[in-house]
Amino acid sequence: MSLDHAATKPHERLAAALADDLALVNDMIRERMASEHAPRIPEVTAHLVEAGGKRLRPMLTLAAARMCGYGGPYHVHLAATVEFIHTATLLHDDVVDESDKRRGRPTANLLWDNSSSVLVGDYLFARSFQLMTETNNMRVLRILSNAAATIAEGEVLQLTAAADLATTEDIYLKVVRGKTAALFSAAMEVGGVIAEMSDTQVQSLFDYGDALGISFQIVDDLLDYGGTAATGKNIGDDFRERKLTLPVIRAIAKADVEEMAFWKRTISKGKQADGDLDTALSLLAKHATMESTRQDALEWAEKAKRSLHDLPDHEIKTMLIDLADYVVARVV
Amino acid sequence: MSLDHAATKPHERLAAALADDLALVNDMIRERMASEHAPRIPEVTAHLVEAGGKRLRPMLTLAAARMCGYGGPYHVHLAATVEFIHTATLLHDDVVDESDKRRGRPTANLLWDNSSSVLVGDYLFARSFQLMTETNNMRVLRILSNAAATIAEGEVLQLTAAADLATTEDIYLKVVRGKTAALFSAAMEVGGVIAEMSDTQVQSLFDYGDALGISFQIVDDLLDYGGTAATGKNIGDDFRERKLTLPVIRAIAKADVEEMAFWKRTISKGKQADGDLDTALSLLAKHATMESTRQDALEWAEKAKRSLHDLPDHEIKTMLIDLADYVVARVV
Repeated sequence: MSLDHAATKPHERLAAALADDLALVNDMIRERMASEHAPRIPEVTAHLVEAGGKRLRPMLTLAAARMCGYGGPYHVHLAATVEFIHTATLLHDDVVDESDKRRGRPTANLLWDNSSSVLVGDYLFARSFQLMTETNNMRVLRILSNAAATIAEGEVLQLTAAADLATTEDIYLKVVRGKTAALFSAAMEVGGVIAEMSDTQVQSLFDYGDALGISFQIVDDLLDYGGTAATGKNIGDDFRERKLTLPVIRAIAKADVEEMAFWKRTISKGKQADGDLDTALSLLAKHATMESTRQDALEWAEKAKRSLHDLPDHEIKTMLIDLADYVVARVV
Repeated sequence: MSLDHAATKPHERLAAALADDLALVNDMIRERMASEHAPRIPEVTAHLVEAGGKRLRPMLTLAAARMCGYGGPYHVHLAATVEFIHTATLLHDDVVDESDKRRGRPTANLLWDNSSSVLVGDYLFARSFQLMTETNNMRVLRILSNAAATIAEGEVLQLTAAADLATTEDIYLKVVRGKTAALFSAAMEVGGVIAEMSDTQVQSLFDYGDALGISFQIVDDLLDYGGTAATGKNIGDDFRERKLTLPVIRAIAKADVEEMAFWKRTISKGKQADGDLDTALSLLAKHATMESTRQDALEWAEKAKRSLHDLPDHEIKTMLIDLADYVVARVV
């Protein structure tokens, strides 16, 4: 491992290795988010697309295609598709969550209005399907429309599970697959499909994306209660929004009568007062649920790495393995 | 023309002629709007899907396919697709318009919340694309994803054109194509495509749907200022919401200084008082813009009928011709 290697983060190394492809993806995103008739559309989209996201999801598609030796042009279309779906989801999420900040900037629904966020999101969804049809590959359309349905279903599930103490780990996992892992796994899968890999190898790519997405989201949920890294996030947002994430679900499962009364008041009824977040944190510590959740994240990251076993050796494969380690390094 | 024929409306005759197909479409809609994990989804969707819409758009797909002699199963998938796209659009429209009534019932955003309307709409969009992929016909996917983009673009355009006195007839037509005609034309077109009609005939089907949709929407906008039929709608909703529809756009084009001041105050600035709607109506009358708009609707209906010329003679063709007359009969 060279010093250079050690000094950069895996997603930065991926971005460097995929720089030419990523430039094409960025060009395509800019070109396709234009609207001759409705200038509001590129305004809203540019605000989000140019806001400095890491382009992690489109990179997964490019990485999968390159690792599998794909030589055609359509990994670019599919990577742009994946970013459009992601951006549309963010626009709608901000309406659902009534967020006012995203990536450190005011959200579109704050700068314009909820209506613009809803409709421009719809436009990007439609655009993403137009882009997919250009690949002439029905299988990728199936994969990505399935992913879009899983995403929406997961978001609805999260909505109805909020503030519900009966939320199980199983429901949590479905929500996580919807909000994060479904697009990670589809992004990987379509890269392998256009490269005409075997069904087993395509499944391995899916499994990598699925496990990476789950560990990514579990880590995110952990960091909301502190984690170990400096993140710039506000601690306790999920608690205040009464979201049932893994550390809390596990603490509730082990709660005695008095603790249950605390969770009922703060989460079910949403009656929170000063000091409640500290109490919640002390209950997570008492039942060691931060630690057990952290173990889960590590196991999913290991699963992601194992999934790549039967794929061709390639410098990008190494970076994807490092990426799985990096995702959980925030809580190691 | 038999008495029986004269006694029923064209869309009812279409529904009778297509009854078996429509039953299959309804079954498919019910089956595909289910969600194993998120019961909120079928609740919201059923509220809207079962609310007694006329199924006009899916009927257009079934009618086009039948008229063109299609013998396969996929007109049912495509008709269900079209209804899902329509339903998703309605759910999102109600959020955008902050509506509280739809088809005489409380809207989903009122019964549940905006979040449910946004996310369940997204789910239906995704489901509609899943359904389309089952046809294995890339051309219909292109047509319907283009339509979805046109719909969203038209809605954004309507949003930004609201309260803008500079809105032209050209912009109005784009909005109308987006909000209504794009799905009508695509619904017709895909029926012809799966029946493997010639490009000319497919274009004719598109033209029929396009012209029918435009006349349909122009009539709707006319009725908002009174029209001649009993509709149960509130007169003046568009005026209060400061929407620029054809009768107003034409009255503004002919306004003198004093009239322009009235439009600026009531539409641009939205400062409306008692009696303003009456003044608006008198200005539409003065410049005869209701009558000239009505003429436009009639011309579009004639264009719709002419478009069917080169299509095979069929009882359904006669019904589609009658349907075009019926759409404008509300203002004849």
